This record gives sequence, structure tokens and C-alpha cells, in this order.
Amino acid sequence: MKRYIIKNEKLVLEETNIPLVKDNEVLVKIKAVSLNYRDLLVTEGRGSWKPTETRVPVSDGAGEVIEIGKLVNSLKKGDRVTSLFAPNWSYGKLEGEKINRTLGGAKYDGVLSEYVVFPENTFCKFPDYLSYKEASTLPVAALTAWNAVIEQSNLKIGDSILLLGTGGVSCFAFQFSKLAGYQIIHTSSSNDKLAIVQSMGAHHTINYKENSNWIEKVLEITKNKGVNQVVDVIGGNHLNESLKCLQSQGIISMIGVMDGTTGTIDTGMVMVKAAKIQGVEVGSTEMYKRMLHAMDVHKIKPIINKVYSFTETLDAFDYLKKGNHFGKICIEF
Amino acid sequence: MKRYIIKNEKLVLEETNIPLVKDNEVLVKIKAVSLNYRDLLVTEGRGSWKPTETRVPVSDGAGEVIEIGKLVNSLKKGDRVTSLFAPNWSYGKLEGEKINRTLGGAKYDGVLSEYVVFPENTFCKFPDYLSYKEASTLPVAALTAWNAVIEQSNLKIGDSILLLGTGGVSCFAFQFSKLAGYQIIHTSSSNDKLAIVQSMGAHHTINYKENSNWIEKVLEITKNKGVNQVVDVIGGNHLNESLKCLQSQGIISMIGVMDGTTGTIDTGMVMVKAAKIQGVEVGSTEMYKRMLHAMDVHKIKPIINKVYSFTETLDAFDYLKKGNHFGKICIEF
Amino acid sequence: MKRYIIKNEKLVLEETNIPLVKDNEVLVKIKAVSLNYRDLLVTEGRGSWKPTETRVPVSDGAGEVIEIGKLVNSLKKGDRVTSLFAPNWSYGKLEGEKINRTLGGAKYDGVLSEYVVFPENTFCKFPDYLSYKEASTLPVAALTAWNAVIEQSNLKIGDSILLLGTGGVSCFAFQFSKLAGYQIIHTSSSNDKLAIVQSMGAHHTINYKENSNWIEKVLEITKNKGVNQVVDVIGGNHLNESLKCLQSQGIISMIGVMDGTTGTIDTGMVMVKAAKIQGVEVGSTEMYKRMLHAMDVHKIKPIINKVYSFTETLDAFDYLKKGNHFGKICIEF
Amino acid sequence: MKRYIIKNEKLVLEETNIPLVKDNEVLVKIKAVSLNYRDLLVTEGRGSWKPTETRVPVSDGAGEVIEIGKLVNSLKKGDRVTSLFAPNWSYGKLEGEKINRTLGGAKYDGVLSEYVVFPENTFCKFPDYLSYKEASTLPVAALTAWNAVIEQSNLKIGDSILLLGTGGVSCFAFQFSKLAGYQIIHTSSSNDKLAIVQSMGAHHTINYKENSNWIEKVLEITKNKGVNQVVDVIGGNHLNESLKCLQSQGIISMIGVMDGTTGTIDTGMVMVKAAKIQGVEVGSTEMYKRMLHAMDVHKIKPIINKVYSFTETLDAFDYLKKGNHFGKICIEF
Repeated sequence: MKRYIIKNEKLVLEETNIPLVKDNEVLVKIKAVSLNYRDLLVTEGRGSWKPTETRVPVSDGAGEVIEIGKLVNSLKKGDRVTSLFAPNWSYGKLEGEKINRTLGGAKYDGVLSEYVVFPENTFCKFPDYLSYKEASTLPVAALTAWNAVIEQSNLKIGDSILLLGTGGVSCFAFQFSKLAGYQIIHTSSSNDKLAIVQSMGAHHTINYKENSNWIEKVLEITKNKGVNQVVDVIGGNHLNESLKCLQSQGIISMIGVMDGTTGTIDTGMVMVKAAKIQGVEVGSTEMYKRMLHAMDVHKIKPIINKVYSFTETLDAFDYLKKGNHFGKICIEF
Repeated sequence: MKRYIIKNEKLVLEETNIPLVKDNEVLVKIKAVSLNYRDLLVTEGRGSWKPTETRVPVSDGAGEVIEIGKLVNSLKKGDRVTSLFAPNWSYGKLEGEKINRTLGGAKYDGVLSEYVVFPENTFCKFPDYLSYKEASTLPVAALTAWNAVIEQSNLKIGDSILLLGTGGVSCFAFQFSKLAGYQIIHTSSSNDKLAIVQSMGAHHTINYKENSNWIEKVLEITKNKGVNQVVDVIGGNHLNESLKCLQSQGIISMIGVMDGTTGTIDTGMVMVKAAKIQGVEVGSTEMYKRMLHAMDVHKIKPIINKVYSFTETLDAFDYLKKGNHFGKICIEF
Repeated sequence: MKRYIIKNEKLVLEETNIPLVKDNEVLVKIKAVSLNYRDLLVTEGRGSWKPTETRVPVSDGAGEVIEIGKLVNSLKKGDRVTSLFAPNWSYGKLEGEKINRTLGGAKYDGVLSEYVVFPENTFCKFPDYLSYKEASTLPVAALTAWNAVIEQSNLKIGDSILLLGTGGVSCFAFQFSKLAGYQIIHTSSSNDKLAIVQSMGAHHTINYKENSNWIEKVLEITKNKGVNQVVDVIGGNHLNESLKCLQSQGIISMIGVMDGTTGTIDTGMVMVKAAKIQGVEVGSTEMYKRMLHAMDVHKIKPIINKVYSFTETLDAFDYLKKGNHFGKICIEF
Repeated sequence: MKRYIIKNEKLVLEETNIPLVKDNEVLVKIKAVSLNYRDLLVTEGRGSWKPTETRVPVSDGAGEVIEIGKLVNSLKKGDRVTSLFAPNWSYGKLEGEKINRTLGGAKYDGVLSEYVVFPENTFCKFPDYLSYKEASTLPVAALTAWNAVIEQSNLKIGDSILLLGTGGVSCFAFQFSKLAGYQIIHTSSSNDKLAIVQSMGAHHTINYKENSNWIEKVLEITKNKGVNQVVDVIGGNHLNESLKCLQSQGIISMIGVMDGTTGTIDTGMVMVKAAKIQGVEVGSTEMYKRMLHAMDVHKIKPIINKVYSFTETLDAFDYLKKGNHFGKICIEF
């Protein structure tokens, strides 16, 4: 079988044997993977994302169960499954040890491989209406958005949410927000992208590049109250922009590290607005199942921007790096 | 009648007439006031706290209703009342306009005066078991602590809370936390104060000055999980210390501005811990009534550190400035 | 001016003077009213609904503010307003005294009158996009549905809700549930009505008259789990049917008294399923405003079945009595 | 080894071999068990509790791990553990299949046996400060009370709770309520028992036998509002008494089936009060661990009424049947 590994901060294609299956493990033939910003950080070896040794990258994939260990009882041959980003966070509150093992990170292999073997709890079945390609987009981007917008949000229909840009998380956040009846204000630097978002039902769109006073626009739309929630995929100092857009007692769901892992925050405004800054860290398998159920009920289709073949993997990473995508980037095997 | 006013960033005693009562107003003879850190910021004219003109300081007082306007129906002569910090925030969520009028701030007079006249909604009756002096401590410090520790907290009995120092808010936070069955870890730089806190039922106390590794102590006590909640009365960069003490999905209730109104925050840790930073802004009249009800059921006595007479007011402010108190500082008329 | 009064359990048209406005009151020219099942109970003098004296019936109306008392400050001449069912329940939790005064009930006059005068808090402005006729449907039916389906519900997108019949409350419950992304199962005895409900986006419809095993159908649709919530507008013994349809830890929102005010309940099943039976009692003005905001954001149009003129009022009541309507019945003045 | 089995609705002592341990199983030497009302229903073969064949009764026990299967990794030899009532309900919401296997019920053996072998997830370690006897009281009575009073309750400190009688669940409900700062009103037919409850810190006690107007007393104590929560361990028609004692928007936690498994309920009052009737069904392992943690923090000691030896088991059941106990009845091996 073939797989990609990270060697000296480069992706290298190699051939190797299909791994054997232990009693509690499952062999899956990967049919598609999708890329996240984190896959870039790992591959380029940035900070704590730097792999400790040769490593197979990419956390999110979908495939077919080919073989199961003797003790496996939640899956069977032929099941269509996705990987899970943090398999040990099966339920309940986040705890440090529950996210020690994350796929395609510094310490554990990922799924950019024709075949993978992992413990049973690393996989979850997905609904029939989704293709492998579509399902491959869910483990990180969709679950993070679901966690931010549904699980950890207290918004009701009619409440307002501000979404930034059109990356994977923001697109899923859009779809879940739309379905939940929130009033959506979506920003981007591209009028073309905003036109698409509008055609999908955004209530208001703002080009933040063309409008230096975009924050006032957000306030105006919300009758000077500000929005109930911001999904901030940028993080760092950008939190202050989010704070300005926020209604009293509003929530900033902080997801991104695009602007670094520290920020000089206007804590005075956090206090005066009784604002809530809420870190969002993917989610548990329990949440993932709730999300899949909701997606199945409504037959929500992930937004896929571009699909590459396995041999075009390096092009896919290049495209990801440009940061200009709308939705998800997939690699089909 | 006599009252204090702020003139050129100094407190000055003056004589003036007892004000007249309009139809919707109430005349109250003040019997006691209590001081908050904010009273210092206003009196010294710091930043946005600087009075716009001659101003009577101090937000928190208790007294007796002497006369009511014709349209007043929630109060009557003889009622024992306290002032309210933000009278227009009567119920529901915080909104900008609900905290435009706050007593003893830059724009509105306070209660450091033998008699005061305010609209009916500025006052609230308090339970019989409390003296005027005790009741005067409640409008800001107790309500802020109540809001942080009870209203906006999701802690259950046995969950852990970290309290910092022994100022007014921290003492009330202690009392409410104790009553709610939380596991209390209390820090201070004074062993004497910690001894008192321990005698009152703190589960663990730490002298953060004597223990440079006090954060590890917090972690150790909580079996390396960290606490479920921190009531951070310092704010600013101290939020990073609080973050280190925090359990995954824990809450930092940010109250203080002692360390300034900005902070350079480790947002990466906020995300990895899925932490919540929650600004806490006093509270509504509705919350205040719930708090008074709970205090009445349990006959909770505010912790008063020192009581000054009206003529010793400047000494009281000096003592406040030293920041060495345990509980509240009162002035009795 | 003309108005209807209840005399000997009959509606009688009479002429009288336009009432005068006191300082805290408002004169409104009613443009439309809508009918609720309760208006029938009051008019026919059933049980505790029997008027204590001559009484103007009907709680729900919309009109224009013609004159305001000197002390009124939340409304002005020309404002378009609806009445409120329980004006004294302005915010917070329900309390007995907050629902002592309800419009068009045994003890207080209603709005089936060309002009009405009530205290300021009896009226609430409504969004521009709604006509008087449409707005008149909101005070009881829409707010009750909102309270059941949004305020007191913990459902997330994809969770399932069972709606019974197509009366006013069920239609609004449908609209709010649809907007909130719930999976809707709707029952009726009429295939024509179910066809309409389906065209509006119901996920599943069941004719309970044609299917004696309709409960099994509900279970089948939900993969034998049962639904997360039932809005039971029938009440009484019908709660047992709702219980059978319910998922473990599901909620029955009990609204109706159509099957009487007692029921012999299978409490064993309540316990085994850890079910929640939740009485729903219209709602507060605060909730009403949140509902109007959500409706405005999404421009939700109430479903009106039939509109009568003021002189056809008795026909309107006859039609209501037949119980065969789909949505609301209005009377336009 | 010796154990009791149910034969023809009688308890019979028998000798048998110590069972063998499979790979995922654990052998525990039982040191103590405690009795619940359900153990009586099972032993006497009432309704659906009737055992399907020869059966070892009693769900709640504590003991020492003697041997573990090869695949067991959460327990080791020497661990002090209790049984769990519904081992398959490990976390999350209740679902039908999660309570299919309950210990000592109609279909599965219990723990009234010197040695027992069960799958790993049937046991949970308990804190060091508890004896085996004390720990044996927790699986049903304590967890049910915890679920009712802490997990599914929205009470804050100062809110009022009504507790009925002094059986196992009510005693634990008392201890958790006390710790959580609720205002406790406790009823009993025995002044002696009420005296004990009062000495433990009940705020109000009422002898419902001596006071035919005990409901008015409850209302009087709560200033005619009624209580925020009732833990109704009787059920059936008694729910109507609980409803009368309840505040608007209050919760009745229904636990008992002492008055049968149906009740003729005043659903009109449920609606007018917007009351919530909430079935409570023991709880999950996740909740159990949270409870043990809270108990450990506060070193809560279960209230044990009487301790029998293994050979006095029939006397213990007789005493249970009398229903006159205060707290729990244990059998020590």
C-alpha cells in the first residue's frame, strides 16, 4: 500500500505493508481525506505541532471497514466510517488526558494512507446519504462548528451570529446556524464569496476589506446592540474586533490560532459587556453522533471546494496554504 | 444636612438643603455606607471614572425611607432599604442602556450624604435580620459575588473554586460558595487572613507569597485537574495565572481591574482547555432580590472589617487605599 | 362605539361611550381580534371561566394607539400594538399574582370592542411587516407555542417533536419548530390538512384516525426511540398516548384542557422513561418581545384560516366551536 | 460460598461454587449489601418485578476485588468497589437499552451472595473514608437522590425543597440539599424522626399526621408561594398533594411507586402553575462518580438505621417491609 509521511517538513510518498489488526483494532481502506489548517502546521513542523518522528499526517478521513479484531463489536466488515480527531474523548466534559491522542498530530499517525489500522473507538459510522468524500470533511471542521454553534451556544431562533470568512469551520457554522434559525451576518474579503453566502441564505454580508467601518455595519444591523455570538476563527488580537461587535452577555467562540496563540485583550470591555470568551476544542464522539443525526435528518451536504487525487496531494496542500478556499479541500483515493 | 462631594479629586464636606421629592421619587435618610475599590477610582478621577462635575461619591448605602412621592407604590415611610448600583437594570439580560445610570460614578451622584433623593427603583428593601451597616455592604460586592458564584456558575456541590485574597467580593464569594457546597481553595499573602478563612471552613488555603509554586499546589489539591472556577478579582495579565489553575471547560469569572483593563492572554491555552472567560458586571435588581432571599433563609452575615464615623470618612478612604482589609469597610452616620 | 358583551352566556352587541383615559392608561382603536378556545369557555360560562358579571370577551387583539395618559412613556399616538394576555407577567418566572389579571377572562374585560382603554403595560408594539389581522393572532396562541417549543424546550437541531392537529397553537409550534431545525412529526385526522403541513415542510405526517397504530408509526420513524418532545394540546388522559410516543428523558409540553382538567396518568412510565411533563402557561412580556424579534428576523407570517367582519362575530364563534380550523380565526373591524 | 436465592417468592440460603471469571469480568467478595424497597417487590414477585427464574436478589453491595479477567483495565485486585444498579447506563442520556440490565431485578442476578462475578463496568471504586457498609448504601438510594436533587434540579441556594419521610432516598436527598444550601421542609408521621431531622439542620419540619392542614403549613413557610421542588417518593395520587405544595414553575421529582404506578392527576393545576413533573430513574455511572467526588470532598456519611448479619437476612427484609426505618438497612457479611 501507499501512504504519505512527513520527512524533514516535506510530504513524501512511500510504499509499505498493510498493517496487521490486533484484537481491539480495525483495518480501514481510506477512500477520501479532507485537509485542515492544522495539517499544514503539523507538516511544516510549527511549534508544538512538530512531529516527534516520521509521521503520517492528516486527521480526517473516510473509508470502508475491511477487517476487524476479535473483540471489536461496534463495527463490522463493510461499514462506512470516518476517523475521529480525538478518539479518547468519547463523552462528557473535556479532560486533559482525553485529547492526548489526536490523529495526524505530533505524536500519532493520521490517515493520509491507503489503509490504516486503529483501535475500534477511532472510527464512527456515518449516514448513507453522504459520500466518502463528503464524510471525510466532518471529523474536525464540522464537529468544531457544531460544538461552537449548537452544543456550547445558548442562542435561540432570531438571535444573531457573526461568521468570519469561508473556511471549513465557518461554512459548517453557517449551515448549522442557518438550520437553527439564527440571524447570520457573514464577512469576507471577497464579494464573490459573499454572493454565494447570500444565495445560501445569509441575512447580511459585509466585505470587511472594502468597509473599514465594518464593525459599525454589524452594530447597525443589530440596532446598535451587537451580535449574540461571534465564531472567531482568527483568534489572537482579533478577539478585540469580535468584542466590539458583541452584544452585552454575548459569546465569542474562539477557535482559531491564525493570528497566533496570544492576544492583548481589552479585558475592561469583557467586563463592561459581561462578555464570554469561550475556547472551543473540536468535540466528543457523543457530540459527533448527535451532529451526524441532525445532518441525517436534514440531509445537510458539506461544502467541498476542490477535490484532488491521491497523487495530487502536494497540490492540495499548496491550495490549502493559499487560504483562499470556500469550504473544504478533499483528496480522493 | 451634610454630605461629601468630590472637588479637585478631594473629598470635601459641605452643608446643603435636604432635596425635595418628586412624584416618582423617594427621600432616604442614609444610616450607613460601605466602600468599594471603584469609589477610590471615582474620587481620584482615574480614566473614565473621572466625575464630569461636582459629584457625591459612593454607590452603596442603607437607610430609612422618610418620604415618598405620590406615585411611588413599592415603598412606604419607614421601610429599611439599600441603594442599588445600577437601578435601571431591573431584570433580564444586561444591555448597554441598563447600566448608563450607576450611583456614585462619573455622571450620577452617590450616597455619601445624610439624605438622598432618587427614583423609586433606586432602592430595595432588605431583610430584618440585617443591620443598616450590614445591609450597606450588599449592593456591589455581594451582588457581584452572587452573580459570579451562583447566577453565572454551573458548579455543583463538590466542584472546586479558587478565591483570591480577602477583599469584599472575595469574602462574599467565599460565603456563597461555602453555602453552595463548593470545594474552596483560598489564597492570600497573609497567613493571619488565611487562618481566619480556614476557621470559616475553607477546604484549602495557600499563601501565594510564601509559595512561588502556588499554582502547582492548586493543581495538586485538585488531583492535577485544576479548579472548576476561578473568581479573578485582579484581572489583566493575572488571567494567565488563573488559566493555569483551571480545569478543562472551567470558568474564569473576571471581576477585577486591579491589574488594568487590558491583558496579554494565552489564547492558545484558552482553546486547548476549552476555557471560558466570563466578565461579571454586578447584577440586576431581580438577582439582588434572589440573593437577599437566600441570605435571609440562611441569615448570612456580611464580614465587616472596620467601621468609621461620618466625620472619619477620609480615614476610611485611606484605609481602603491600603488594600489590606478583610471584608468590607463601612461608614456609619 | 360598539362592542360585544356576554349576557346570559350569549354574545350581545351594544353601543356605549368611548372610555376616558387615566394618566397611566392608553386608548386603542381595535382593528382586528383573533379567537382562542378559551374565548369559547368564557362566553359559554364553563367552570371557573364563567364571568363574574357582564363582560367584554376575547383576549387577543391588535389596533392603533389613539390617545395616551400623561404618565405613559413606552407608547405614543399612532403606535401599532397588540394586547397582552397576562399584562402583569412582564418578566421572570411565573408567579400566582402575575396571572391574576388576564384579558377577556372571568374577571376582566377583553378586546371585542371598537375602542379599549387599559394600563400601558397591556399593550406591546409589533413589527411593521405584520398586518393588524396577523398581529391579532399572537398574544395567546403564538406566545404559548413559543414558550413550549423555544423557551422551555432543550431541543437542538435534528431532535424530534410531535405536533397534534392544526389548531392555532400547533400551527405556530410548527412554524417555530421548523425554523429551529427540529424533525417534525405532525398528526391530524384530515389528509387534506396533513397535505398542507407536508407542503410546509413537515418531515412526517400521520393520520391518527386512519392509523389505529399511529403510535407505532411515531416509534418507527424515530428508530424505536420515540420523540424528544410532544406538544400535547389535548391534555387529560391523552397524556398517556404522548408518553408512549416519548423518548427517554423527553418532554411533554402540556397545553390543552380539551380532554378536561384531570387525567389518569401512567406514572410508572413517567418514571421508567424519566419523562418530564411540563405545564405551559402562555408567557411573559419579555418572552413576547423575544418572539416578535425572532418573527421579525424571519418575517414569519401567522397562518389565518378565516376572517370574519365585526358584524359576523357570532359566525366566527360558531366556526371556532366546530374545531375544524387550520390556524387562526380572525375578526376584522 | 453461600448466597440467597428467590424461590417461590421466598428467600432461601444455598451453597454453591465460586463462579469463574471471564476475560472482561471481575470477581468481588461482597462485604455488605443494603436494601431498597425494590428488593421487596422483586422478592415478593410483584408485577413486572417477578423474577423470570431462580434469581439472586438485591442490587446494592460493596466488596473487595479478588480477581480480574485479562482484559480488565479499570480495576485491580484489592480495589474497594460498589455494584452499580444499571451498569450499561455509563454516561449521557437515559435510553431504553441502557437500563435493560439492572442488578437483582427480574432478569439479572444481584449481590446477596458471598462472591459475585460481573463484567468490569458493573463496579465502581469508592472513596477511602467510607466503610464497606456505608458504601453499600449508595448505588440506588444515594444516586437517585443525587439525580433528583442535584443533576436534574435547577435550585439555587435559598430555594426551598420539600422532602417526604425518612426512607433511604429522602435521607440522602436531605444530605445533598443541606450541602447545596436549599431551604429544607421535611415531613414525617413521627415526631421522633422529625426531631432528628431538625437536629441535622432541617429548616422546617411538619408532622403530616398530626396536622391535617400540613399543606397550608408548607405554603405559610414559603410566604404562600409554595416550594421550588418536591421529592415525591410516594407517587400515584400523592402527586396532587405535591402539586398543591408547589410554587409556580416548580419541579416535582417523582421517584416512588409506593402508591402504585398510576395516579389521577389535576392536570389543570399542572398547567396553571406551569409545573414540571419529572420522573427520576436512578442515574448513570458518570453521575455516580460526580456524586462520589462530592461526597469525598465533604466526607458525607450515609445514614444507616440498622445493620443485620448475613444469617439475619430474613429479619432485615421484615424490617424493610415495616417501612418504619430512618435511612438505610444494611446486611454485613
